[in-house]
Amino acid sequence: MMTHKPLPPGSKIGIFGGGQLGRMLAIAAARLGFHVHIYSPLHGSPAFEVAHEHTIAPYGDLVAVKAFAEQMDVVTVEFENIPLDTYEHAAKFCSISPAPTALAIAQDRLAEKKFLTSHNIPIAPYVEINGEGDIVSAIYKLGPDGILKTRRMGYDGKGQVRLGVGVDPDLAIKAFSNQPAIFEKIIPFKLEISCIAARDIHGNIVFYDCPRNEHRNQILAESHVPSGVPETLEKLARAYTAKIADKLQYVGVLAVEFFVLGQGNEHPLLVNEIAPRVHNSGHWTTNACAFDQFENHIRAIAGWSLGSTKRHSNAMMTNIVGHDMDRWADFASNEGAILHLYGKEEVREGRKLGHITYLYEKS
Amino acid sequence: MMTHKPLPPGSKIGIFGGGQLGRMLAIAAARLGFHVHIYSPLHGSPAFEVAHEHTIAPYGDLVAVKAFAEQMDVVTVEFENIPLDTYEHAAKFCSISPAPTALAIAQDRLAEKKFLTSHNIPIAPYVEINGEGDIVSAIYKLGPDGILKTRRMGYDGKGQVRLGVGVDPDLAIKAFSNQPAIFEKIIPFKLEISCIAARDIHGNIVFYDCPRNEHRNQILAESHVPSGVPETLEKLARAYTAKIADKLQYVGVLAVEFFVLGQGNEHPLLVNEIAPRVHNSGHWTTNACAFDQFENHIRAIAGWSLGSTKRHSNAMMTNIVGHDMDRWADFASNEGAILHLYGKEEVREGRKLGHITYLYEKS
Repeated sequence: MMTHKPLPPGSKIGIFGGGQLGRMLAIAAARLGFHVHIYSPLHGSPAFEVAHEHTIAPYGDLVAVKAFAEQMDVVTVEFENIPLDTYEHAAKFCSISPAPTALAIAQDRLAEKKFLTSHNIPIAPYVEINGEGDIVSAIYKLGPDGILKTRRMGYDGKGQVRLGVGVDPDLAIKAFSNQPAIFEKIIPFKLEISCIAARDIHGNIVFYDCPRNEHRNQILAESHVPSGVPETLEKLARAYTAKIADKLQYVGVLAVEFFVLGQGNEHPLLVNEIAPRVHNSGHWTTNACAFDQFENHIRAIAGWSLGSTKRHSNAMMTNIVGHDMDRWADFASNEGAILHLYGKEEVREGRKLGHITYLYEKS
Repeated sequence: MMTHKPLPPGSKIGIFGGGQLGRMLAIAAARLGFHVHIYSPLHGSPAFEVAHEHTIAPYGDLVAVKAFAEQMDVVTVEFENIPLDTYEHAAKFCSISPAPTALAIAQDRLAEKKFLTSHNIPIAPYVEINGEGDIVSAIYKLGPDGILKTRRMGYDGKGQVRLGVGVDPDLAIKAFSNQPAIFEKIIPFKLEISCIAARDIHGNIVFYDCPRNEHRNQILAESHVPSGVPETLEKLARAYTAKIADKLQYVGVLAVEFFVLGQGNEHPLLVNEIAPRVHNSGHWTTNACAFDQFENHIRAIAGWSLGSTKRHSNAMMTNIVGHDMDRWADFASNEGAILHLYGKEEVREGRKLGHITYLYEKS
């Protein structure tokens, strides 16, 4: 029910989810003159701090969802694991963007892989696991080096266990505990990049330069632009991303993570996963581009045209995770460290509490 | 009562004033992990939208001021016309920054001119006007070409009337209506620039590149960086600004407006006025620098060190005033127009509703 008229400043934008992504979306929306309403089940959600209004209610509270959606001109999500029922219920009372299909696919690794395969977008070989016996036959088929991943609720390495020679299969079975899963073959890759794109309601699509991403403990640690990968590969990443966005009739910002195998391979790039939302690996855009990923998401869902994705500087983004935060005074006294803190009170191992961007002159 | 320890993220920053400057300060503070509380007498103040909390009360309500200040770690102002009693009352319950002296001087044109003169900083010749008879003797002394300015509550051309040959002196007397004023000689100048500086609690000072400013109807219309004035003059502007900031023991961002007469004159620069706050002519810093004026103000008052003022791009900032806002859809569809809207509902002639920054590659 997306109208094809741009929403005027003063319109109301609702966001499901109150974490740091919702927070940065809220700031971008306010800057364009929109009023933001955050819906989150959690008291003290980081996004409340910079939003006009908020609702605290479980996602399953459809009465609260209705009351929220009725007041909004358009509703979006800050992350893909918002229950589909909730999101589709909101759609009865206002526009929603992106369409629920994108969430449905990103919520289920199996659906995502089938979607990608059906559009000839290369991924690592995998086998569907519906019961304990399937693991043995999966290993038989793909070899022992692989990752068992639950189909649902996986992010930042959650719901994943690596198998392989010397790993106790009992461990896998324990981790697995009969949830539907997939077993994915480990393909040796050189590095990881992501492609962050914004697509407007008319189907126009723009891309930021691909960052090269480094993970620690399965959590994004650093993103670097330029990525250093050959332009032909970035071009290929953009082509795959465009195809994904077009097939999903996607409106908003979408990120696609890639494994770079390199030229000479049958497929120089494999898609790792799709994130139908703004993405941690795009946080550098706030400081290195005139229009960041958050603003372009808001522009897209508001029916506006997209801002330029041109990058004025090289950039490196590093996440502040858990007890990295103990070093806040060092970050604060570094005159080149562009600090973004999320206002989270509790420091927990593995919790993303902020990020730092460093800018460098384009060479 | 400024402590010399940096405030940790999670500390509370209070801001007197809820306009667009307070709004952009609030966003900058949130990004550093601070909780912002806005104090404003006006319902629907633009800064409320992006602040953690707000108080709606008259500035004269010292009970409300106490209740506000008691909760804060540091309190600052978004504009210089906050009543001094209010600001000094807050100082009984928390740190305040900048010191009230800076406001006292900026609130009174006569005090400002005496302050500048006492530190050998050149200004246009002026005469103090305390009664109607003084105008005649002022014109006799300085010539007819001058501006009558009330001593207090002057901004965006408010409280000013231009006199000169052919102007009915009755008009002046009417405009004047016995308020204490000054009569200031008009000195032909080539152009106007401003110098925006940030000074930290240790006295370190940093400067942004001076913008060249163009006014329309006595309201800032455009700022351009680089200014095009010779580097020696920008250096002189920085020297005057540093002297002002040091003499005031200033902490935070301070802007000084200059008339550029050019080299060959006894004084190539004259100070027009001091703004002890973030300034409209510094809005381009949000898009052309890694650390903008709003963040450096927050850093300074929080006892942090200052961020780099380096400019990665050339920039032009244009204000959206009054019915310029009717063209919002044009602005929104211009992929190079970086839009900042203030969320003000009412469009009024002469009201600042937003601004646009354009970036260009540094040549």
